[in-house]
Amino acid sequence: MEFSSKYLSNAVDEMAQLPGIGKRTALRMVLHLLKQPVEQTKQLTAALDRFREEIIFCEECHNLSDQKICEICSNPKRDNAQLCVVEDIRDVMAIENTGQYQGKYHVLNGIISPIDGIGPQDLTIASLQEKIAKGEIKEVIFALSATMEGDTTIFYIHKQLAAYEVKMSTIARGVPVGDELEYTDEVTLGRSIQKRVPYEDSIR
Amino acid sequence: MEFSSKYLSNAVDEMAQLPGIGKRTALRMVLHLLKQPVEQTKQLTAALDRFREEIIFCEECHNLSDQKICEICSNPKRDNAQLCVVEDIRDVMAIENTGQYQGKYHVLNGIISPIDGIGPQDLTIASLQEKIAKGEIKEVIFALSATMEGDTTIFYIHKQLAAYEVKMSTIARGVPVGDELEYTDEVTLGRSIQKRVPYEDSIR
Repeated sequence: MEFSSKYLSNAVDEMAQLPGIGKRTALRMVLHLLKQPVEQTKQLTAALDRFREEIIFCEECHNLSDQKICEICSNPKRDNAQLCVVEDIRDVMAIENTGQYQGKYHVLNGIISPIDGIGPQDLTIASLQEKIAKGEIKEVIFALSATMEGDTTIFYIHKQLAAYEVKMSTIARGVPVGDELEYTDEVTLGRSIQKRVPYEDSIR
Repeated sequence: MEFSSKYLSNAVDEMAQLPGIGKRTALRMVLHLLKQPVEQTKQLTAALDRFREEIIFCEECHNLSDQKICEICSNPKRDNAQLCVVEDIRDVMAIENTGQYQGKYHVLNGIISPIDGIGPQDLTIASLQEKIAKGEIKEVIFALSATMEGDTTIFYIHKQLAAYEVKMSTIARGVPVGDELEYTDEVTLGRSIQKRVPYEDSIR
């Protein structure tokens, strides 16, 4: 794509580096900014700059936070005995949205994935181990993706924590609520038959 | 969506104002920036700020430009007798990419669209008329979208310019090169039969 302006071409090139944004989409977004008041662009760039410079990771759970200790970790109403291990901050948001969990979180900031060159040392596993060593946590709940990488990560952490007296569980896997059996994939359906639960438990 | 950080939530909200970007995509882009060096964010925001503040419209053709007169208008090799009327800067780029046009452009910066509240006075039609009045231009080529709005805009401008001695033409409409007849819509196919061209012309 040839641009009539250096400023335009720079702006498009920079936007096109964002994930999922091609040159065409970048151009559309940049031209949109041109139709809006200058203030909108200033607010956007200021928000991005401030975000990138000011945001920190919570020292306890490694979630994104404005303070050293995030709102969840500093909330005295949350249960200190439960720790939910997740891949990244989006999973914290997803679980928080369910309103079904009152414990705390531990954000791994990734998942073991040899193909992407991500090993255990790239995750916050050491800090997780330290936390468990203190003995306050009674249960670790693995809420990782139901993928090979997720399973590998759970397996690895499970081994690391085996020496401690802590209950470890994973979130339930099975047919999603509202889904029709006919369209559920074989592996999920097969596993959900194997791991069937007593009816009394299922309606509680 | 609930965010653990004010900075994050601001950045996501601002990004989500861009066209075609929802909150989820905005979050993905913002978290991507967090994984990159701070410099990348700075370059992005600087490029956007500079673009929004420095870019100007060419005084002649209303294309985006770094100088008062854009590169195409100031190019002595371009044909001053031909003027191609387009909706916006993207169309200039598209036509330039074909390498088939050596004349100059006139960017309307929009298209007449009552439903979006865009009337003739919002476009650069007055400036187009002034240009034609000078008498140097021999042909005006309408290269607008093949839509109701495009047709309306051509009709309106055609009436405005009727008093001047200038040839007016529109780009050819028909079955796209490479397309199969079977999948061409009825209207296009119907028109392309009505407006058939002598075979000798079609292979020139």
